[in-house]
Amino acid sequence: MTGYFAGRTLGGLARDLRSGAATAAGLLDRALESVDPALNAFVTVDAEGAAAAARTADEELAAGRDRGPLHGIPVGIKDIVDVAGLPTGMGSAHFDGYVADADADCVARLREAGAVIVGKTTTHEFAYGASGDTAVNGPSRNPHDPSRISGGSSGGSAVAVAAGMVPLAIGTDTGGSVRIPAAFCGIAGFKPAYGAVPTGGVFPLAVSFDHVGVLAATAADCRTAYRVLTRRPSHALAARDGLRVAWVGGGVPVAEEVADAVRRLVPDAPAERVDLRALRRVFAAIQDSEAYDVHAERVAVSPELYQRVTLDRLRRAEHVPGWRYVRATRERARFAEEAAGLLRRYDVLALPTVPITAPEIGTRECEVGPVQPALLSMTCPWNVLGLPALSVPAGTVRGLPVGLQLIARAGDEDLLFQLAERTTP
Amino acid sequence: MTGYFAGRTLGGLARDLRSGAATAAGLLDRALESVDPALNAFVTVDAEGAAAAARTADEELAAGRDRGPLHGIPVGIKDIVDVAGLPTGMGSAHFDGYVADADADCVARLREAGAVIVGKTTTHEFAYGASGDTAVNGPSRNPHDPSRISGGSSGGSAVAVAAGMVPLAIGTDTGGSVRIPAAFCGIAGFKPAYGAVPTGGVFPLAVSFDHVGVLAATAADCRTAYRVLTRRPSHALAARDGLRVAWVGGGVPVAEEVADAVRRLVPDAPAERVDLRALRRVFAAIQDSEAYDVHAERVAVSPELYQRVTLDRLRRAEHVPGWRYVRATRERARFAEEAAGLLRRYDVLALPTVPITAPEIGTRECEVGPVQPALLSMTCPWNVLGLPALSVPAGTVRGLPVGLQLIARAGDEDLLFQLAERTTP
Repeated sequence: MTGYFAGRTLGGLARDLRSGAATAAGLLDRALESVDPALNAFVTVDAEGAAAAARTADEELAAGRDRGPLHGIPVGIKDIVDVAGLPTGMGSAHFDGYVADADADCVARLREAGAVIVGKTTTHEFAYGASGDTAVNGPSRNPHDPSRISGGSSGGSAVAVAAGMVPLAIGTDTGGSVRIPAAFCGIAGFKPAYGAVPTGGVFPLAVSFDHVGVLAATAADCRTAYRVLTRRPSHALAARDGLRVAWVGGGVPVAEEVADAVRRLVPDAPAERVDLRALRRVFAAIQDSEAYDVHAERVAVSPELYQRVTLDRLRRAEHVPGWRYVRATRERARFAEEAAGLLRRYDVLALPTVPITAPEIGTRECEVGPVQPALLSMTCPWNVLGLPALSVPAGTVRGLPVGLQLIARAGDEDLLFQLAERTTP
Repeated sequence: MTGYFAGRTLGGLARDLRSGAATAAGLLDRALESVDPALNAFVTVDAEGAAAAARTADEELAAGRDRGPLHGIPVGIKDIVDVAGLPTGMGSAHFDGYVADADADCVARLREAGAVIVGKTTTHEFAYGASGDTAVNGPSRNPHDPSRISGGSSGGSAVAVAAGMVPLAIGTDTGGSVRIPAAFCGIAGFKPAYGAVPTGGVFPLAVSFDHVGVLAATAADCRTAYRVLTRRPSHALAARDGLRVAWVGGGVPVAEEVADAVRRLVPDAPAERVDLRALRRVFAAIQDSEAYDVHAERVAVSPELYQRVTLDRLRRAEHVPGWRYVRATRERARFAEEAAGLLRRYDVLALPTVPITAPEIGTRECEVGPVQPALLSMTCPWNVLGLPALSVPAGTVRGLPVGLQLIARAGDEDLLFQLAERTTP
């Protein structure tokens, strides 16, 4: 937790870069010094490429060319997202030696905005898991207690931000992979609406649910990065009075201390029921079918290259029946209508991001049941529905961070950021 | 083949109705007299309801209210399509005693147009088969040789038209169920573009591929009925010069005599390859998954109510893996692009409707392999692609009819009818 960027915001860094109090090259040096190998946040650091980008950023600023709020800012990129000239490892032995020849769309947009790509962050193997402890390069570790999981699959990105190595990182979120590690590591994570940020150059997990998202210390910094990724000129947050907020639950168990800590931030929100349990079933049938489609040939040809847990998951995914996929697709449409109805009555839905705090690495069972399904139980419904979802820090339980998750209609993202500002504990 | 309507066209009947040479009540009587129980084309005849409709049609015409080309015309409706007040049997013991309380959308449009609904035609059980020999009320029989299959699943509709019981019948086509029996029975059958005719009130087989279609003696009569079903005012066929026609094949076997008979109608069309075999695989994965979704609860609760062949098909369909469905969906998109490319170079694609002539009822193997997949092999690709497809009579092979199938872009339906007029043998 001692990295240079701990406690710093994108706004402050931007001011320093423009006042001369900092340079992009200097910030990059601070980032490289802050990388703590024990936490295993980065799988690849590109000191040379980043230095060149930082020099360019400094020269441009000096010459009066200002690319906006991410100009000169060091950023980490999840290792299932292509960065030209760098390996994309996917957390897997399958991609040993693979080097990307082009930037993913989201990376290209960051570069256009002057960001400095520091390197690639540890991912759960093929992003197929929410714990962040399964990768050929080992688990990313929780900065609040390195014996605990970071959460995943964008574990390295969350750890890199939470430990102050970089002020911003890119993740992907198919069932909670941005929000879960953000919550466990005590930072903010934002999954935009489905399709809002292009996924070109990102290795697919389940195409119906794959989203590119952002991780930063604060919701405001997530907003800044999100607006850059969607190429919309930055503007001030327009606050709306009298936000109608509902507290959502339904059919999935939550540890009492976690529920209490999070509920405290929206004490007046009336309780509403969404069948999170049924949505998780819909999620699983669709994700598993789509994931196996991506991996079928690899499983057939070189199963031994997978981590054992990943191979076991894929072997189960292989046998999800097609009619379950079809039925899940129908149910998804029905749930989308229900959610639209709820979001006519409320502006924002609130619930915990994860129903537990980060367990010890290797733990299979927790107080609310098996760990893996518990991790996803409150985040994956919003991937099924494609709604924008923000996780913000909601204090700690026994010293471990918990997250408040906020959901809105697509187009109403600013309501999430507005509410987040108000509810930070 | 001795029914009153054999050799008569909708245009001729319309003229007779308006000149006073015929009345709707009289035509209905001719239809009822023409019904030959030995062919099993009708499962329900609604003499009373039809008589009332015919009376109304005659009164309207006498009063100068003319509803257009189907006014007073007797029509048969496939027994998976709801007609208010009549049983919809689905060819299955499962729906014994079920009476529809509203008209399907397509039936409502026929009534608006003044058509007289004679009754319900025999369907392959739940439309899940192309042979037309599997139904709780027994097989529909080919008028050219009653020991042979009619083809299906809209077998009763094809038999009713081919045997002159009615001049027009409604069918449905998920993989060829209008075109196959049309070809085997020596009449015309048209499957419109996907979505062109609403499917409300039609029992689903596979929602991605389900189409409502029409069967009549000639392509021109199919066009008339199609325009009524799409509520577009009738207009004359605008012929285009220099139609570019391709002869399509690829990976599925065709009986030589069938290929020769059909090829003769478009002798100058250059040969092009479409991977019909791969499209059939795509079709099967999607159809089976969607069909089982529709039937899962019935299979669980009362499997004994299905005909044995249908239950066996469903039990196999249950185990199609979800990832195969997902992959088929991706391949479908790729094939759609390929087909779009081919249809920029050609106006119409031509091929046999079915690669064989109608086999004896009960036959499992034919000269090109197992019967069921052979039946669908040249029709189902156009359901996968959602393109309008017309089957027209192409003469006979050893006394049994064969069909020429014509495909165009959605929107170019008239090119099919134009070419059909020109190529009738």
